[in-house]
Amino acid sequence: TIPIMMGLSGQRVQGMGGSISPVPVFENLLVMSIGFLTQGKDDPVIWRGPLRSGVIRQFVSDVDWGPLDYLVADLPPGTGDEALTVAQMFPKAEGAIIVTTPQEVSTADCRKAANFVKAVDLPIVGIIENMSGFICPHCGEKTNIFGAGGGQAMAEQLGVPLLGHVPIAADVTRLGDEGRPLLGPDAPLEVKQVYEGIVE
Amino acid sequence: TIPIMMGLSGQRVQGMGGSISPVPVFENLLVMSIGFLTQGKDDPVIWRGPLRSGVIRQFVSDVDWGPLDYLVADLPPGTGDEALTVAQMFPKAEGAIIVTTPQEVSTADCRKAANFVKAVDLPIVGIIENMSGFICPHCGEKTNIFGAGGGQAMAEQLGVPLLGHVPIAADVTRLGDEGRPLLGPDAPLEVKQVYEGIVE
Repeated sequence: TIPIMMGLSGQRVQGMGGSISPVPVFENLLVMSIGFLTQGKDDPVIWRGPLRSGVIRQFVSDVDWGPLDYLVADLPPGTGDEALTVAQMFPKAEGAIIVTTPQEVSTADCRKAANFVKAVDLPIVGIIENMSGFICPHCGEKTNIFGAGGGQAMAEQLGVPLLGHVPIAADVTRLGDEGRPLLGPDAPLEVKQVYEGIVE
Repeated sequence: TIPIMMGLSGQRVQGMGGSISPVPVFENLLVMSIGFLTQGKDDPVIWRGPLRSGVIRQFVSDVDWGPLDYLVADLPPGTGDEALTVAQMFPKAEGAIIVTTPQEVSTADCRKAANFVKAVDLPIVGIIENMSGFICPHCGEKTNIFGAGGGQAMAEQLGVPLLGHVPIAADVTRLGDEGRPLLGPDAPLEVKQVYEGIVE
């Protein structure tokens, strides 16, 4: 879904031979996604782990990234093939960022992810709490739909910073669906500030 | 997280030799989860696909289910090892149920899942729309945080029934965190009715 959320739906890269050019979003942001290689936009990638791991390796070794400040690997949930492959490819990575929602069943999953990150000897850069409270556009009152404080509690438990809270906001969903990146020029200021704070 | 959500945290089953007894939730509901086999509750399962697939096979062949009306396999998102293994183990399954949220990036993923289900020659029983609208407990107004109509549109596209909408409700989150099953005796009536409608 990265191509949808970045406004790059329908873009294709050449996957054959030599090096692959990543797709630019902004001047300082390049993207590579399996979505640029599948034929139809609704084609599933029906691959077992070894093929998935192979394509992750190619996205690093065969993509012409040029000099980078940061390379961010956005992983699916869980502690399986994708996470293991990335951890083994980058034993000297800066670290992992763990994204949780406030409720117990999510922080339980994220404590497992944290133990995974420790098991592969990577530092944890910090925690991001997603789906963190909803402010009703009708009355302005806040409801903690998915509970509250899970990200903070996890950060304290692990002794790492809480990098920020992403609120539940219809704007965030809508901008993603419309392919307008949340740090882009036309994102609403209050959404942008949240993400800029996390990046900072 | 199934043990947490079913109120079975800390339960263990014997994984060695012969047959494994599943854990009862209600008189007519038995559960098996990898969570019953891991030592600590925060232990990650750091396994590549072949091991994951092996345990799925064991959950069917080595668990003493007895006679069943339905066997439901709750799968992680995606079209990788777990989904492939289950599809190949049950070529004559009743079918697949696809759970989506209303927004475009989720229905895009679910269209891929639908194409996966077709590729493995299973029927689609229906669609469930999760995170379907939020009613503010302060003012009673509804906000479609994750958009609206995605489940309905998908069901129409695929020519299959929309089995129901699960609203965004703090009660659903809280009951899951507290290990009180949503069809159990102490679930609030309005939550129960949603789930009973889907089951029906």
